[in-house]
Amino acid sequence: MPVPGPGYSITVRVEAPPSASAAGDLTSAVGRVGGVITAFDVVESHGDRVVVDITCNAMSANHARDITTALEALPGVAVRKVSDRTFLMHLGGKIEVSAKVALRNRDDLSRAYTPGVARICQAIAENPDDARRLTIKRNTVAVVTDGSAVLGLGNLGPAAALPVMEGKAALFKKFAGVDAWPVCLDTQDTEEIIRAVELIAPVYGGINLEDIAAPRCFEIEARLREKLDIPVFHDDQHGTAICVVAALRNALRVVGKDIADCTIVVCGVGAAGSAIIRLLLQRGPADVVAVDIDGIVHRDREGMDTNLAWVAQNTNRDGKTGRLHDALVGADVFIGVSAPNLFGAEQVATMADDAVVFALANPDPEIDPLEAQRHAAVVATGRSDYPNQINNVLAFPGVFRGLLDAQAKTITDPMLLAAAEAIADIVAPEQLNPSFIVPSVFDAAVAPAVADAVRRAAQA
Amino acid sequence: MPVPGPGYSITVRVEAPPSASAAGDLTSAVGRVGGVITAFDVVESHGDRVVVDITCNAMSANHARDITTALEALPGVAVRKVSDRTFLMHLGGKIEVSAKVALRNRDDLSRAYTPGVARICQAIAENPDDARRLTIKRNTVAVVTDGSAVLGLGNLGPAAALPVMEGKAALFKKFAGVDAWPVCLDTQDTEEIIRAVELIAPVYGGINLEDIAAPRCFEIEARLREKLDIPVFHDDQHGTAICVVAALRNALRVVGKDIADCTIVVCGVGAAGSAIIRLLLQRGPADVVAVDIDGIVHRDREGMDTNLAWVAQNTNRDGKTGRLHDALVGADVFIGVSAPNLFGAEQVATMADDAVVFALANPDPEIDPLEAQRHAAVVATGRSDYPNQINNVLAFPGVFRGLLDAQAKTITDPMLLAAAEAIADIVAPEQLNPSFIVPSVFDAAVAPAVADAVRRAAQA
Repeated sequence: MPVPGPGYSITVRVEAPPSASAAGDLTSAVGRVGGVITAFDVVESHGDRVVVDITCNAMSANHARDITTALEALPGVAVRKVSDRTFLMHLGGKIEVSAKVALRNRDDLSRAYTPGVARICQAIAENPDDARRLTIKRNTVAVVTDGSAVLGLGNLGPAAALPVMEGKAALFKKFAGVDAWPVCLDTQDTEEIIRAVELIAPVYGGINLEDIAAPRCFEIEARLREKLDIPVFHDDQHGTAICVVAALRNALRVVGKDIADCTIVVCGVGAAGSAIIRLLLQRGPADVVAVDIDGIVHRDREGMDTNLAWVAQNTNRDGKTGRLHDALVGADVFIGVSAPNLFGAEQVATMADDAVVFALANPDPEIDPLEAQRHAAVVATGRSDYPNQINNVLAFPGVFRGLLDAQAKTITDPMLLAAAEAIADIVAPEQLNPSFIVPSVFDAAVAPAVADAVRRAAQA
Repeated sequence: MPVPGPGYSITVRVEAPPSASAAGDLTSAVGRVGGVITAFDVVESHGDRVVVDITCNAMSANHARDITTALEALPGVAVRKVSDRTFLMHLGGKIEVSAKVALRNRDDLSRAYTPGVARICQAIAENPDDARRLTIKRNTVAVVTDGSAVLGLGNLGPAAALPVMEGKAALFKKFAGVDAWPVCLDTQDTEEIIRAVELIAPVYGGINLEDIAAPRCFEIEARLREKLDIPVFHDDQHGTAICVVAALRNALRVVGKDIADCTIVVCGVGAAGSAIIRLLLQRGPADVVAVDIDGIVHRDREGMDTNLAWVAQNTNRDGKTGRLHDALVGADVFIGVSAPNLFGAEQVATMADDAVVFALANPDPEIDPLEAQRHAAVVATGRSDYPNQINNVLAFPGVFRGLLDAQAKTITDPMLLAAAEAIADIVAPEQLNPSFIVPSVFDAAVAPAVADAVRRAAQA
């Protein structure tokens, strides 16, 4: 169920007759085929014609063509050009490298480069910790991917993953002043990925793994944490887990339940689901029941990998078996990080009273949020067009700000939980309600609060 | 023979008596021990004392201490603090990553990041060439080192090399608008370096190898050129060779000689020397005679590696043997990229008339340039405090600007020669004289001219 949004915004330049009804005719034509106009600019006006830029949100490439066709069908109207604003924004990439020091004259040059820089090099050679003081290492994070699980799109490879990593780097800077750099590796071999990250690590104060497929991502993260003296964070795992734990804390406040009394169904046991389960278990729920495409995860299931075996060992106390629908009966909380349209209102009705439903599959959630709301007390999604968007942007910038400021050498569960608490606490008691359990991604208070919490946890 | 320079500039904060002679006493004390004062700022003035910041250039750490001691020896003077301006400039590093796109609101976010970015990823997955249009690849170069030959300092390792790579990145942006990123690899194994660069390559439009020791650097460069579809440039080799060929062209114009009649001695057969020889041979000199620590390179020498064997095969037509002093007899040109103080005026006197001497060892040249001038017609060094500084900054920014603009997949000798011609031609005939054979590194015309020449050569 896509809706027209700014992620698919086009600008159509048309020539139209200079009649009084022209503007109305154009906007009606767009509206009739479902386009949403966001700007209407007359760029030229002549005696015999006007030239207009119509900017509108569409749903897809086909829908954009429908809009163009509808405009061309109007009498006397000609489409000159269709620009896609998202593509225009990406021309030449989204980030750049800038000098922080002046290089106006020879004196500047002799300090920033030879011969002056030689003394800085020698100081670091003598005292390696000085790298965190005298180089970019102090503020710089590698955003590392192999392109094997790009957004919800799958295995597109490293080059096609780069626009996401650039976007991430831009967000790191915008929300937390962190310098982040894309590292898109041309391999999907676990050993090669680990070794490559180890080799590039001297420049960085932290590693953010991104869009690496499960189960490879678990081993890469665990092994790198052992090898490196800088923190290794996998955003698809830990970023998501932080945000879910934060949102759940506030959702349970809304419904007045204690997590110790709650049974939580987690649907999807990939990178995100596994990390959510691990972090949730630190908060002491009554039980967690994990479900994947093969049904409820239980100890007697066959053919489980290391990750799934760990999940089976640590969840599902009562040894439930069956499918998702069976797991939902009597559950207090549903957390989905899986696939679209898995259940409907009738299954929500089988959950406990005041059920909490986080349907986070993107772009299409596990259940239509409007359906979920018929029986659930609190509903959240990963989408920006419904209330309670659970978005990793709430976590990763502040987390790394805190880690870098603490010069942390590792990242621990207490730091992740501190970040979750900080996000939850941004929503003041008087603001808290079923439609506002997490702060806005544009709330400027979030990243500093998260950074502060992580820094203190790291220094503790 | 170091001289006080801005690469070693300190600011000493002193308390002094408020007497009429205080300023004179302070400046005289600094001058007596050889410090060069560049700024004198009174920062506080009280009835009983003044506080002054004295900024001055020193020669070394010991010299900086001498200056401080001389100030403290003055009656009533106390040194509060000594700051090193080079270290201050390096705090937190010299480059940063900035967003080129606005991220003010949700519409921006939905174009630069999810969901809009997904279409960009898909476009690149379908057409990999689009990465050069829709990502930073179009304008981005990796500055790759293993820290094995940092400046003239030797094998300091990757972390200590980072300040040089950051400086290089700053210069890339300043002189040619190229986004360059430091890649400091925590290995000195040839195979691992090659593989690491191959793995990180998808993000980059070019690779600049830097400060990698010979002979490893030759194999790394050659193998990467075979493997990658982006140009691989080793600045210590090709950047130096371009600048030397450019300077030599103008030096020979000054003395009115044709390179076809010239015998050229190249002293030092590491990365720089070998590359200089290879590029010079393209220009058809009468002969090249290579000399290293073991003397003149000739075909019958024993124990030569692949690189040296190639040099022996392609130089020294007359089969000369002996030491540097023997090679110089009758030579038209000396090019040194080796070690300090290898010869004196008496050896220059044995060279042909109108000899050209490029003594490029840094910081201390193969011959004192003032000595060389007694018998040579043109003298150049790598230093900024003598005329004719041969500095790679003249080449690498423009070379990569041209390569990126041409979307070049490789780099060839005709491109290097085109760059050399462009640098030489910046010096107009009426400007050309023995003290001005290369343009200033701050001449804004250089990089665009080099870029244009390289782009045209790449497209040819």
